[in-house]
Amino acid sequence: MHPEHLASVDIGGTKLSVTVASRAGPLIRFVQATVKTGSPRAIVDQSRQLLVQACAHVGVDAHAIDRIGVSTCGPFIRHEGQLALAPPNLCGGLAHADDLPNDWTSIPFEQGLASHFAQVEIRNDCVAALIAERCFGAAQNEANVAYVTWSTGIGFGLCVDGHILHGKHGNAGHAGHMLLSEISEALCGCGNRGDLEGLVAGRNLGNRLGQPLADIFAAAQSGDAGALRVVEEAARWFGRGLYNLVTTLDLRCLLVGGSVWRHHANLLAPLVEAEIHTRFPALTEGVTLRGAALDDLVADMGALALVMPAEWLADWRVRKPWAGLQSVVLPD
Amino acid sequence: MHPEHLASVDIGGTKLSVTVASRAGPLIRFVQATVKTGSPRAIVDQSRQLLVQACAHVGVDAHAIDRIGVSTCGPFIRHEGQLALAPPNLCGGLAHADDLPNDWTSIPFEQGLASHFAQVEIRNDCVAALIAERCFGAAQNEANVAYVTWSTGIGFGLCVDGHILHGKHGNAGHAGHMLLSEISEALCGCGNRGDLEGLVAGRNLGNRLGQPLADIFAAAQSGDAGALRVVEEAARWFGRGLYNLVTTLDLRCLLVGGSVWRHHANLLAPLVEAEIHTRFPALTEGVTLRGAALDDLVADMGALALVMPAEWLADWRVRKPWAGLQSVVLPD
Repeated sequence: MHPEHLASVDIGGTKLSVTVASRAGPLIRFVQATVKTGSPRAIVDQSRQLLVQACAHVGVDAHAIDRIGVSTCGPFIRHEGQLALAPPNLCGGLAHADDLPNDWTSIPFEQGLASHFAQVEIRNDCVAALIAERCFGAAQNEANVAYVTWSTGIGFGLCVDGHILHGKHGNAGHAGHMLLSEISEALCGCGNRGDLEGLVAGRNLGNRLGQPLADIFAAAQSGDAGALRVVEEAARWFGRGLYNLVTTLDLRCLLVGGSVWRHHANLLAPLVEAEIHTRFPALTEGVTLRGAALDDLVADMGALALVMPAEWLADWRVRKPWAGLQSVVLPD
Repeated sequence: MHPEHLASVDIGGTKLSVTVASRAGPLIRFVQATVKTGSPRAIVDQSRQLLVQACAHVGVDAHAIDRIGVSTCGPFIRHEGQLALAPPNLCGGLAHADDLPNDWTSIPFEQGLASHFAQVEIRNDCVAALIAERCFGAAQNEANVAYVTWSTGIGFGLCVDGHILHGKHGNAGHAGHMLLSEISEALCGCGNRGDLEGLVAGRNLGNRLGQPLADIFAAAQSGDAGALRVVEEAARWFGRGLYNLVTTLDLRCLLVGGSVWRHHANLLAPLVEAEIHTRFPALTEGVTLRGAALDDLVADMGALALVMPAEWLADWRVRKPWAGLQSVVLPD
């Protein structure tokens, strides 16, 4: 029997969103800053509270929803047989980062939801985004494709030969932690120095430069030479990371999303493409770099797709009912 | 109808081998230095000549063999709709390397064999090796596993979620060309500086040091401090490459083969493991590094497996009929 309603949760390093959908399309999306204080279960509780509020907002019985798709920043670990989250962007106990007000080493997410829902599907947020782009977006006919987000962190969803890669614990796509520089001191939340995320992710790069990345990009866009050098160097590292991925997986298409990319693709795309295409033509020829189609909703749509009946999916692909979805932003 | 006999060709940067097999097992293996002069078709001709000679040696009618599995160094390109080889280790026209006496830019291999065999299956040699280790060797129960060769070059075969990765042109696994160093001048045959293969592959490292890598390893094994530093640095780069792969694909097992590894695993393994396991426990915990099981025959066995009936495969797995296979080494 098909469900009346479905729900999704998307857990990011900055924001958490909950979406409620019927067959007709997504009905409402509630967004709030991700809680980073209290017990390791705080994010589970926040997700459930937002779901109750979102359901009340559209007159849906929250207790009747028994399928939930979850997209979340990773990585996953196994904790007492169930999937738990251990993201360095949220768990202050992993790298003892100064800007995280907790000492969590993991978040027992599957355990927290399994008692409330008959079906819980949890994926890394970039895997969810890739699924969304393949179902509804800019990668519908791509068999060898990566989704990449350049945002607070750097993450990947990978598809080779039409198969979405999961790996032993669902952590395939953590290529943001690939080591690129042997001399850089750039620190990543995972403890690495000189990995892709340490070098260019919004949080790390902003921390290192002592000002928000948005300000640096704005200065670069208006021609400031120093800011432009920072952006060019970041684009070069990002391009080297993408080249490494193409050469490892023989991809044809790279779909880039995330706030950094979305706001500055005009500046970044030519620099990143140059870094990919000047190398090893047998592997890089014909590789296309393009923007993701689903913008802010990409992970939510992927999480919904995880628990959606096939005929909803086919119907949504044609009707695009997510356009105009209302997001309600709650105070912290 | 099942074939009476099958054949395989393995094309390496140094040697080419042809194996003839019946249901009972591989019958004979002929080996010769890979030809690197003449027309781009020289290697196709050499393969066919070796097959005729190998068949004659065991009294098999070469013309009755209609299935051939091929394992070869890569990468592949598409040339007039068919798979051609463009390996920087063989094609002197790609990076204009001084030690290659030809100006080939590609080798039309599929075209050269398709008119002689009803079934031609061509895979990268490390993909073939991975298939062999999963069918007959040390990776029979591994769903998330890479085969890595450390030899003349560096190559990978990748399996994620039980699926062998191919990519858009069958070139998945060219992670030897992943960039690791931003400052090294180490030149790879592909033209990159500072990629894994440029940094540590036998041919490149030996060229750079001005003496055969075997001599350096021998000196390191007997305690020479300078040689030991070279080996330690190479092991560190190799380990960083493997770490990058684990973090990208969430692998559980790394199977290493190739002449460099095989002869010096005692020295290399602890150094390589340290480089993997000191990083990001959520991704690296439980990852095992072990030697490949099939040694010199790994690519030949993989190439045979590509065209082998399933019941031969199940039977060979139990009987291991490749043990004691005779190799006839022909003069150049």
